Amino acid sequence: MSCWLSGIDVDRYFDLRRGIDGYINIHPLQRGGMLPSDTKKTVLEFADGYSVCDYCLGDLHKTKRPPVSTFREDMAKFLGMDDCRFTHGAREGKFMVMHSIAKPGDTVIVDSLSHYSTYVAAERAGLNVVEVSNKGFPTYEVEFERYAEKIEEVSDRTRKPPVLIVLTHVDNQFGNVGDAKRVGEICKKYGVPFLLNGAYSVGRLPVSGRRAHADFVVASGHKSMASCGPSGVLATTDEWAETVFRKSKIVGNLTGKRFPIKEVELLGCTVRGLPLVSLMVSFPHVVERIKHWEDEVDKARRFIKTVERVNGVRKLGVRPHGHDIIDFDSPSFHTVSQKHRQRGYFLYHELKKRGIVGIAPGKTQRFHISTYGLTVEEVEKVANAFLEMAEKYKIAIK
Amino acid sequence: MSCWLSGIDVDRYFDLRRGIDGYINIHPLQRGGMLPSDTKKTVLEFADGYSVCDYCLGDLHKTKRPPVSTFREDMAKFLGMDDCRFTHGAREGKFMVMHSIAKPGDTVIVDSLSHYSTYVAAERAGLNVVEVSNKGFPTYEVEFERYAEKIEEVSDRTRKPPVLIVLTHVDNQFGNVGDAKRVGEICKKYGVPFLLNGAYSVGRLPVSGRRAHADFVVASGHKSMASCGPSGVLATTDEWAETVFRKSKIVGNLTGKRFPIKEVELLGCTVRGLPLVSLMVSFPHVVERIKHWEDEVDKARRFIKTVERVNGVRKLGVRPHGHDIIDFDSPSFHTVSQKHRQRGYFLYHELKKRGIVGIAPGKTQRFHISTYGLTVEEVEKVANAFLEMAEKYKIAIK
Repeated sequence: MSCWLSGIDVDRYFDLRRGIDGYINIHPLQRGGMLPSDTKKTVLEFADGYSVCDYCLGDLHKTKRPPVSTFREDMAKFLGMDDCRFTHGAREGKFMVMHSIAKPGDTVIVDSLSHYSTYVAAERAGLNVVEVSNKGFPTYEVEFERYAEKIEEVSDRTRKPPVLIVLTHVDNQFGNVGDAKRVGEICKKYGVPFLLNGAYSVGRLPVSGRRAHADFVVASGHKSMASCGPSGVLATTDEWAETVFRKSKIVGNLTGKRFPIKEVELLGCTVRGLPLVSLMVSFPHVVERIKHWEDEVDKARRFIKTVERVNGVRKLGVRPHGHDIIDFDSPSFHTVSQKHRQRGYFLYHELKKRGIVGIAPGKTQRFHISTYGLTVEEVEKVANAFLEMAEKYKIAIK
Repeated sequence: MSCWLSGIDVDRYFDLRRGIDGYINIHPLQRGGMLPSDTKKTVLEFADGYSVCDYCLGDLHKTKRPPVSTFREDMAKFLGMDDCRFTHGAREGKFMVMHSIAKPGDTVIVDSLSHYSTYVAAERAGLNVVEVSNKGFPTYEVEFERYAEKIEEVSDRTRKPPVLIVLTHVDNQFGNVGDAKRVGEICKKYGVPFLLNGAYSVGRLPVSGRRAHADFVVASGHKSMASCGPSGVLATTDEWAETVFRKSKIVGNLTGKRFPIKEVELLGCTVRGLPLVSLMVSFPHVVERIKHWEDEVDKARRFIKTVERVNGVRKLGVRPHGHDIIDFDSPSFHTVSQKHRQRGYFLYHELKKRGIVGIAPGKTQRFHISTYGLTVEEVEKVANAFLEMAEKYKIAIK
């Protein structure tokens, strides 16, 4: 039986560990997705495969126990939208929208700070992407005033209005906070559907899709809602719900089987499993934490202020900084790396020695971190680590 | 700030419980997805959002820690295929294949025991579905001999060969085990790509895609590989890998950004999070357990033998039974329900009183269970519960 199984060494999959226990983790992808301790308790309860399906009657989003049904309503309210579905993440939500409302060859307008998954979702849906420029170094601020001209340009050139505008609410590189309301107003004026990508905003800061005139909001559980991956939300308005959440109409040609409660873009159900439960159990925590967003911004600004005392280190992006994701330009650390035995890895190792993980190994010209959810003491410890390293490697401190 | 947040009652999301602790669970969706205790230990370690991305360099499937990179190779070997990717489940794999190799309007041939998600995946991809008949009550055996004529029929009628044949290896209703090799040989003869849906076979019984002449195998972690949902695998051959796992070619029109390592159908990464880790940590257990598949079949057969002693109760599907999923026709219990105070719910409640959960509440005309992974004593306890209920409600026992 097992001839083709030879050569499989299963030993390497026993007892996997992340190896970061006890470290301060400043990984910009990870800070917003850490589970509160209450959620961790529930994780084991629902760890088995199809654990959310104990009482399901065929539609995940109508399940009463666990209360997915009310959660759907509460999540839609939380996002200031009419309805929503749970997804595997923001990117899957973007593809669901594009695949539902566009045809191959249509054009979507995106900001030039978009996450790669916005481009790849458009590519998967066969769409052309047109970018809205940003101001480049050092602010990289998206030129929001150009949305109107871009819409007109696409309409003129392709003889069809763009099928969708996607705005990255907070970009993953610089932590710039986009002017969602302004873009939403332009979209409304031109009658172009507007998708707000809240992967790094929803669950961190207050976001109301309605106030931004958004037709769609996508969000990420693992990135910003204190949840297990893969999890996310796609929210929309009553106007679009029937299109994006359209029900199956297929009929078996011999059996006559129909699946009228199954939603096509969801393939029936989406995030059937533990990540959905984590999203639910973390929800009270998330609803509370967004009220304290200003404290997070203050922490990030204090961190920037300290780290910028190191000569040659400068935060990139818009000022004043309005998010916890921070990208630093650091030619002075880069100069050190060129003569260091560990080359570009020295920064990573120096931080690890100080109990800090989460920056990309090998990079010194730029480094990219998040302070989200750290205590004031932890933020100070991380900031001081940069001062200590500057001192050690004889970089001037202002 | 929070005006739109009013009306959200977060209290209902605290401390969610399944409420089935200590019960024997015979839910046919769930038996194959239960986590071994070793995997549960690791679950907490990787519960935080993007926990698999600590050391990722941009391609999930090449990550070395946790060892996704070798796991991909080992999983491909396990399935007897050349390469694979991890997905959110079998249905997502089916859609990825259909969306990659077919064009809207093309035809896919499916067996008439297909899971609804096969139909809905085809619908999402804009494909027409043609079913291969089954023999109906009581065996519901798919008429494998008809695949050749169906291929010819579609080719004649649409002037194009079917773009794909999908075979449900084990169907979710009757637990019939399809003749994959036979269908694979027909597909090979006609040169039609063949997708084997192993949602209820891979991880339970030995499955070699190569032996079945499969071009694609999809599998489900939460259904049959002792893993958290949502998780799955899409495996293929070298011939198809470049098509289905094609890399992004999109270029930002202003920024010139490219994402050449990102795979389009995966939207870059797929099951980024805990479910992938559970698939990995359960893998040694799964590789071992498929060697004991015959014991599982024996258990199921013994169970059927006992329960069929109840007058009027009969297992549906092919005989001898070859799987742990069992669908019983039970007109005698149904007759009881018509006079019972709890109507169709009595069976559910009688079982629950006896420490057994997992049958659909309200149904008595048919009931649908799985014995997978139960101990011999548990199987006996469940079987005896049906005898006790027969006795209590004065149904003859043979």
